[in-house]
Amino acid sequence: MIVLTKEDMEAVFSMKEAIEADKEALRLFSQGKSTVPLRTNIPVPEYNGQSLYMPAYVAGETSALGVKIVSSYPGNIEKGLPSIPATMVMLNAETGIVEAILDGTYLTQLRTGAVQGAGTDVLARQDAKIAALFGTGGQAVSQLEAMLTVRSLDEVRVMDIDKTRCEQFVAEMTEKFKQFDTKLIAVETAEEAIKDADIITSVTTSKRPTFPGESVKAGAHINGVGAYTPEMHELPSEVIIRASKVIFDTTEGVLAEAGDIITPLEEGLVERSHYQGDLGEVLLGKVKGRETEEEITVFKTVGTAVLDVVTAEKILSKAKALGVGTEIKL
Amino acid sequence: MIVLTKEDMEAVFSMKEAIEADKEALRLFSQGKSTVPLRTNIPVPEYNGQSLYMPAYVAGETSALGVKIVSSYPGNIEKGLPSIPATMVMLNAETGIVEAILDGTYLTQLRTGAVQGAGTDVLARQDAKIAALFGTGGQAVSQLEAMLTVRSLDEVRVMDIDKTRCEQFVAEMTEKFKQFDTKLIAVETAEEAIKDADIITSVTTSKRPTFPGESVKAGAHINGVGAYTPEMHELPSEVIIRASKVIFDTTEGVLAEAGDIITPLEEGLVERSHYQGDLGEVLLGKVKGRETEEEITVFKTVGTAVLDVVTAEKILSKAKALGVGTEIKL
Repeated sequence: MIVLTKEDMEAVFSMKEAIEADKEALRLFSQGKSTVPLRTNIPVPEYNGQSLYMPAYVAGETSALGVKIVSSYPGNIEKGLPSIPATMVMLNAETGIVEAILDGTYLTQLRTGAVQGAGTDVLARQDAKIAALFGTGGQAVSQLEAMLTVRSLDEVRVMDIDKTRCEQFVAEMTEKFKQFDTKLIAVETAEEAIKDADIITSVTTSKRPTFPGESVKAGAHINGVGAYTPEMHELPSEVIIRASKVIFDTTEGVLAEAGDIITPLEEGLVERSHYQGDLGEVLLGKVKGRETEEEITVFKTVGTAVLDVVTAEKILSKAKALGVGTEIKL
Repeated sequence: MIVLTKEDMEAVFSMKEAIEADKEALRLFSQGKSTVPLRTNIPVPEYNGQSLYMPAYVAGETSALGVKIVSSYPGNIEKGLPSIPATMVMLNAETGIVEAILDGTYLTQLRTGAVQGAGTDVLARQDAKIAALFGTGGQAVSQLEAMLTVRSLDEVRVMDIDKTRCEQFVAEMTEKFKQFDTKLIAVETAEEAIKDADIITSVTTSKRPTFPGESVKAGAHINGVGAYTPEMHELPSEVIIRASKVIFDTTEGVLAEAGDIITPLEEGLVERSHYQGDLGEVLLGKVKGRETEEEITVFKTVGTAVLDVVTAEKILSKAKALGVGTEIKL
């Protein structure tokens, strides 16, 4: 059995590769080649926690079988521990034998950034130069990296309700991502952030829109990454209405969980047909992506276990080829 | 994270301890202190396999949270690999963080032997001297060890339809378990095996009874371990009818899976009330165990994830205390 830490994974697998892995995952999903049972949730009331088990199998070019174990323990923060610890367990699909354990927290960050990168790569204008990022929490780093990876950006405006954290994030990211040669700017208003922005990514758990929909410029591409409950609503309904393409990672997941997509539908602001389908279908040519330079496109992701298993399998395969990771006997 | 191999587990945890762990697990189960969601099954038709995920949580004296990953790949045998490989992943119930990986194949063997040991310890006559064991497959070793552990036996008669395997098993076990000072005998007929036997354990996947129910002596205790589908029927209906106590590991599991218990009920040979309840309830004094020296008792087990998590937690706790196992960074 091989154990891959975050450092091992970073050493062998780039954001660019993760974006391609996520594209392949969503393509296989849209081809009906994945099996994703309902995740199992075990409440642990004694410790104010819950533990989720997300197994999945994908057949195809990449054969991937595994289970992500994700817990939610809000009280962990006080103990200096991650509040949403995760571990990925991979099986060999040919033998059913457990063959690897990966840092699931990093895997989640990577594949969640990467799926936004995939959406942006497929839907944003090729000549996009200005981007805006709302939110500077734990998931923001890989969102930023994904944007920087798929387009040659001149600048990214970053906004957070916590100004100090925002400035610190910009300082750290300027250092971390200096190879991209993109100017990162901490801004104080949403208007300032999205003025002339070609790409807007929101990764918050906000219950109110993080930017004004009417100010989004024609031709922009919007990514909604943060909202994962029906109460969360970070994307303004106005931009959902104005968009001529609204694409999801999985329709099933998004319509069950994402408030900013569910609410406009429930309020009758858009018809069901306004939501065209999944990114995998766009990649397969079954659903249209961007058709003009002036239309607004939206990509909303809530995540799926398919992204986990395919990305993990690709990482594992490269780690094995490069001899990276710790081999343990079991 | 700690990794425990079979050798690590054997080094720190005895069958006697496993039997006590299983008793505690079933007691906690019967007290409603366990959460055992339906197991998730992922078929992998491309490789003629399936992969099962069995998470469980138990609160109480022992707080245990984990998931057993068990695959069934019949074709593995031709590759020299286990056909039912298993891995146990344990979480810290207080933090939700994965903290250990254990050899799940050995864990399953151990806890399945141990639960029969628990049933035998609770239900068999104290003065039991003669036992019979039907089946010498991979699970037979720990069944034998469990019987030897809970009663001071003079002899155990072993039978298998494969005579050569049976004799080899007896030779190996005579060496392995010499400390028990019990005579192990390979026999050729079921009649010979059960004549005057105080304890009879069947661990086969037979669709027909492995011994004649009418020849079972008064006062005997019978364990049914092998049958785990409605088609399997290793215990004769006659002995189910003759028994005055028929006790299960979990009624839910047994009535869903075990042919030798379901069929007599369906054929109207016994009433539903003939099945009194679970071993955990007997341990709690809520259901009666053996009351006379002359009555026949039956214990049927199909297994439950509760046994896995509690046994694994006990093993892990001892291994940590003794510094056994391989510590890995994740």
